[in-house]
This record gives sequence, structure tokens and C-alpha cells, in this order.
Amino acid sequence: MNRVRDFQFTQLLNFNSQSKTVTLLGTIGDDNAILTVEKLPFEVTDEAYLKQFASPDIFPEVKQLENNDVYHWNLATLAQDVNKRPGVKINLIYPASETHVQKYSQQQTRMVVETPELYQQVTWPYIETQLGSRIQWVHNILYHGKEAEDVVYRKEDSFVLLPDMKWDRKNVNSLYLVAISLRNLEGQGESGKPITSIRDLNHSHIQWLKELREDIYKVVKDKYNVDRSFLRVFVHYQPSYYHLHVHVVHINNEGLGSSQLVGKAILLNDVIDDLGFLGEKGYSQKTLTYALGENHKLWTAIKAHTEA
Amino acid sequence: MNRVRDFQFTQLLNFNSQSKTVTLLGTIGDDNAILTVEKLPFEVTDEAYLKQFASPDIFPEVKQLENNDVYHWNLATLAQDVNKRPGVKINLIYPASETHVQKYSQQQTRMVVETPELYQQVTWPYIETQLGSRIQWVHNILYHGKEAEDVVYRKEDSFVLLPDMKWDRKNVNSLYLVAISLRNLEGQGESGKPITSIRDLNHSHIQWLKELREDIYKVVKDKYNVDRSFLRVFVHYQPSYYHLHVHVVHINNEGLGSSQLVGKAILLNDVIDDLGFLGEKGYSQKTLTYALGENHKLWTAIKAHTEA
Repeated sequence: MNRVRDFQFTQLLNFNSQSKTVTLLGTIGDDNAILTVEKLPFEVTDEAYLKQFASPDIFPEVKQLENNDVYHWNLATLAQDVNKRPGVKINLIYPASETHVQKYSQQQTRMVVETPELYQQVTWPYIETQLGSRIQWVHNILYHGKEAEDVVYRKEDSFVLLPDMKWDRKNVNSLYLVAISLRNLEGQGESGKPITSIRDLNHSHIQWLKELREDIYKVVKDKYNVDRSFLRVFVHYQPSYYHLHVHVVHINNEGLGSSQLVGKAILLNDVIDDLGFLGEKGYSQKTLTYALGENHKLWTAIKAHTEA
Repeated sequence: MNRVRDFQFTQLLNFNSQSKTVTLLGTIGDDNAILTVEKLPFEVTDEAYLKQFASPDIFPEVKQLENNDVYHWNLATLAQDVNKRPGVKINLIYPASETHVQKYSQQQTRMVVETPELYQQVTWPYIETQLGSRIQWVHNILYHGKEAEDVVYRKEDSFVLLPDMKWDRKNVNSLYLVAISLRNLEGQGESGKPITSIRDLNHSHIQWLKELREDIYKVVKDKYNVDRSFLRVFVHYQPSYYHLHVHVVHINNEGLGSSQLVGKAILLNDVIDDLGFLGEKGYSQKTLTYALGENHKLWTAIKAHTEA
């Protein structure tokens, strides 16, 4: 039974004017429900459809707003058909829990200026709470060969390269791989702990990172025939999990939200170049500025520290 | 006279499935025409409209695709009205020149790794061709007080702060200002040429940049009541014009395409921090990695140099 029609609006949870999406909280009967409506992209592979532009079949009504020299602006309605040419997709979550509501609510983002002192006093204590069993799934891949059938490339004591969940594994224009560090794993050649984030990187890691970069370029060229000049290779700070990993994304893949924005992504090239100037103490000396959602536990800790 | 209806489709020039936009090349009579159609965002400020979700008034047809546990997926048509609730905006360029066609055609992007040597040999000679009359409009603002009524703040020998064209000047959630350098203008206190890009910055500019950053934060807080933790403050490399300027954007304004991506935008905080490590020669020593369209004249020059 389709429950969309039974939805009663309560409040706006979120919207995005770039992706033309709106998320509403409401009720169906006595339960909460979350309705997300997103306008669909144009079907550009349908040449017959494109040929109809701009006939009344596609634009039933057109209204000119203004024109200046060769530029003309109009508003119009667009023909739709729920079977052949729907206008929107609708995702309904029903019944929706409090956790669902929290997750789909707009959260304010803040820029954080993390000095070396703030890292020592607040960020590192937070990171420690995120290690161990929190990243068991990473350990499963690295130590126990989980997802081994997916591994694109593995170089002992260096890194393992896997397809990212967000990639369909077919279209190279949206290629998305992730290289997870195998450096300093316990019980292996080197002593010390695994690298949790770029904060742990210093002068001693430059040569390894340069080799890792060349290995990535070579494997992607050999396996997918994609040249290095088409790859955006970067780390996140803050990352979503604290075991150093590098994102390898095709430059045509722009639809990744905030994942590739400055203040979240840092190019591997820049990391390597920075390490050359930062000396022996490396990234532990830098001030790093990044965007963080107010719902993030690290933001709560930073706010408490700053106001104390 | 509205010419949209006379458009005859020739070929697809570009599309974006994220922003739901399509750009078509066609003809009107004997001339080329370019038609860009973009789906409009939801009008989330209209509470009466939101209240109608999900009645037949808004979704005339709904079709369930699938459901799994609490998750339900549907397709639907969306009610429109060209006056009150249009579905799309249409930009028509007619007659369109070859330059228009080139500009609106999909272009492949490349990552460029610009070493200090490549900058000296290729990029700087290109930048020199972009100075003088090419940036007359910037000089009009700085020297002749053009757009003076728009100036938000001006500090002699430091910078002038203006609203960016992309800002509607109303909604602070999409606040977008630009601070154009007044440093080293000819005929003023200091000798030397204006700063063309971050490549010209070195240790001697740190104090000025720190003051500029504080001034921006203070003016934006005083005038728009927006706190510094809500501002993304960055430069572009390569910039769209070669007179140093700083972008000041509200963190909620994510809909700026590639303008805020890593490999294009560099946070002012990072510039200042980098300069502290780079020593007297500053940014002229760094290797900078950035995305560049293949239609860009600099890409042509870099390609010719690399293949020579």
C-alpha cells in the first residue's frame, strides 16, 4: 500500500537549492514520517526527447522574463508522465524514529581553526575514543582479508586499494577508489601505532607517500586506463574514520557534496609538498581549518573547550 | 517576441545531473542558438505550499517503485503553473557566436601539477597577457571609484570589500563578498606591481593578510551579524582574473559548483599558515596542484610545453 498520500506536513527538515531537494517531517496516522522529494535530472541519452525541445510537447507554457542583447530569460512548465517522464522521486521513511529525524535534519556547519594546541588538548582525546572496536571493519579488511575479492591492489607494508562504496564499479567517469594505509600495522616490520590521520605524518613519510602516489597512478592506468591528469587524489581532515586512507576520484565525478570541498579535502600532492617545508615534526605543527557539523561529537568537545 | 518556441535541436552541448541542467545547441532560422534549461528549487519559504504535501494538488500521479522495511521509494509528477509555480527556467542565447558555443560546451577538466619551474616558464608568461586592459574593470573599481555605491568597506593600501555578482544581497545564508587587494597599487606608498596571485605572496605579506582577515571578520559581523565560524574565506588558484582577491562565502552556500573544490580554492588560513613555513621566497617555491578546463588558454600553453 502506498502511504505517500497519507502524509501530513509538520515541519521543514532540510532543503538543497543546488540539488533541488526538500525533506519534510510529518505524520502518517500516529507515527512520524520523513518525506524527501528530489527533482529528477534530464534524460540526455534520449535523443528523440531532446529533439522535441522547445515544442509545446515539452514546454506547455513559456513566459519571457527579460532580454538583454542576445540573452533571453524565460520561465516555463515542463511536461511529465509518471511512467515515461516522471518529475520527481520521493523517498518516504515511515515509521520514522527519532534517530531518523536527527539524521535528516539540517545541521549547521562551522569552520574550526585547529591549532596544534587544540589538537593536543581536544582532538586527539576525541580520536582515541574512535579507535579500537570503532574501526573493526577496517581491521577486518587489513588483517583478516575481509572483502579480499574486492581488492584492486595490495602492497605489503604500504597500502591496500579498494573500490569505494559510492562507486558503481562500471563508469570510469565516476571512478572512486580508496587506498588504506598498511603502514605501521602492529606486529609488522615497523614499530609504533597505525597512522590515524595526516596529523601523524612527518618528514619520514615523504618517500612512502611519493611511492604510494606513483603506485596509485600506475594501477589506475593499468586497470582502468585512466591517466593521472584525470585523478583527484586527496585525504579528508577530519576523516570519517581514523586510519589513514587516501581518496582517488575521477575528476569528472563532481557530485560528491561536501566531500571534495576545501576545508574538508586536502590534495595528496599538497600533503607531500607541505611535509617538505614542515620539517621533522610535520603536520603536528600546522594549523588546520575545516568545516564540521554541529551534530559531530568533536564539535561539542571543541565548543566546550573554547567556552571553558 | 519570444523565440524559445522557434528553437530547433541540433546537439547536446552539456548537462549536469547534480543541478538538473541541460544545455542544447540548435538553430532559430539561419542562426545558432543555445538553450539552457534548469529545474527550479522547491520554494521552501512558502509554508502554505509545504502544507499541501503530499496531496493530489502537488503530486497528481504517484507510483511506488519498491519498499524495504521503513523505506519506500516512489516516482511522481509535480504540479506546476508558469506564473505561480514554474518548473524550469530557460536561458536562450540567440544569435549565438562560436565563442558562445565554445563556452557552453562540455569541456574535459585536467589536474595540473605546477612546479615553481613550470610557473616561471609557462604560467607567468600567460599571466602577463591577462594584465593591463584585460582587467580594466578591476582598475575602474580600484582607481576610479566605479561601483562605489556597492562598496561595503574600503581600507586604503589594504583592500576593498564588495558584494560578489552571484549574491542576491539579501539572504545571509548565501552571503558572498569579494575583497580585492589595494596593496602595491602603482602610485601609492609602496613600490612594485600589484599582487597578481598567491604566487606573489611571501613572508612579508603575513602581517597584512592577518589584518585583512580580522578586518573581514569584523565588517561581516558588524554589517551582516554573521560570525567568523560561518565564513569560508579563500582564494582561487588559478583565479579568474589576475589581481589578488579573496572570496568570503557563507558556509551554508554550497551551491557554487567547482568554485569551492579542493584543487581550485585555498583557504586564506592555509595561505597564512603556509607562508610561515615557506620562508622569504614564499609561494614562489611551492608546487601547486589545480584543476583546469582543456579550453583554458593556460592548459593549451602547459600542454605545448610538456609535449615539447
